Amino acid sequence: MPERQQAHPSVTPLIVERWSPRSFDGSDIPEEDLNIIFEAAGWAPSAFNIQPWTLLYARRGDANWDRFLALLVEFNQSWAKDASALVFVVSNRMQGRGEKRSENYSHSFDAGAAWAMLALQATTMGYHAHGMTGLQFDEAVSDLGIPEDHRLEAAVAIGRKGPKENLPEGMQEREAPSPRKPVSEIAIAGSFQ
Amino acid sequence: MPERQQAHPSVTPLIVERWSPRSFDGSDIPEEDLNIIFEAAGWAPSAFNIQPWTLLYARRGDANWDRFLALLVEFNQSWAKDASALVFVVSNRMQGRGEKRSENYSHSFDAGAAWAMLALQATTMGYHAHGMTGLQFDEAVSDLGIPEDHRLEAAVAIGRKGPKENLPEGMQEREAPSPRKPVSEIAIAGSFQ
Repeated sequence: MPERQQAHPSVTPLIVERWSPRSFDGSDIPEEDLNIIFEAAGWAPSAFNIQPWTLLYARRGDANWDRFLALLVEFNQSWAKDASALVFVVSNRMQGRGEKRSENYSHSFDAGAAWAMLALQATTMGYHAHGMTGLQFDEAVSDLGIPEDHRLEAAVAIGRKGPKENLPEGMQEREAPSPRKPVSEIAIAGSFQ
Repeated sequence: MPERQQAHPSVTPLIVERWSPRSFDGSDIPEEDLNIIFEAAGWAPSAFNIQPWTLLYARRGDANWDRFLALLVEFNQSWAKDASALVFVVSNRMQGRGEKRSENYSHSFDAGAAWAMLALQATTMGYHAHGMTGLQFDEAVSDLGIPEDHRLEAAVAIGRKGPKENLPEGMQEREAPSPRKPVSEIAIAGSFQ
């Protein structure tokens, strides 16, 4: 895997330096810090300012921690167990009330923007946030009481980075910021090609 | 509408100060600046680092500008005409190849994270980015040649903010950063309530 390389030095360091480690140090996170991180998520833009996101969370060792951890796939459990908080990001598929009730076209897209804000805010505070879609979806929806008109989008592990050596060997090799497609591949002037 | 108020002073100013104006000043944006903004979008996290996003763009006055503008709903055309760039954010619904080809569960969510990075990067550079789902979807999908296995997520107007007075009266009143739900409403310890 090629190293992460920034093409334009002008890209904000916070954006380039954010990444998703798997080795966390098993420390606790103060509730106050989590609240700051969640507030940042809430500052994301959303269609008609609907803010379709809900963040279900457990802090390491609290009454919900074991239950939350068990809702990840086993691979993710194996490293996320050392994170400080686990968050399930849920979006509301619907908007409006009564006769005006309809599908919110961008509920997932907007929740993704909230997740990005969360990850950046965590990074500014010395934490790392690692998003996951490797979840036991059916169990999670049922166990977390997610209503049918909502969608479980992803889970996030938040914590302080630990040494790579804490991970099993296979994961150690992958413990590095991942590269990206060049801009010329993701941005197109005009129509789709 | 209550004013935008930050609950925790520790939330990164960039995240709180980003907002979505409608009054743009009609100036041009250098291609180089757009590339920096697009690179930032590409630094977003995504499931398995698939990076499912594509950004179709037109710069003010280029060969695609009028065509892109016409794909917004009329209300959005009325103000976005003074932006410097229009971007259609598209995601690839699918992942993998051949027998492993399957739906990417988080294609919209991940594209939303890319949009958030784009908006923040634009903000650091003195631009503003305004996302829209008020689009002529059928025409846009057809006109932009978006493949069936992709999803048109949203459009974004990028530009330099103009004076509020440039807007029609009805829009002038709404030309302010919007408030947010309190953290206690979006973050829940434990299951959904």
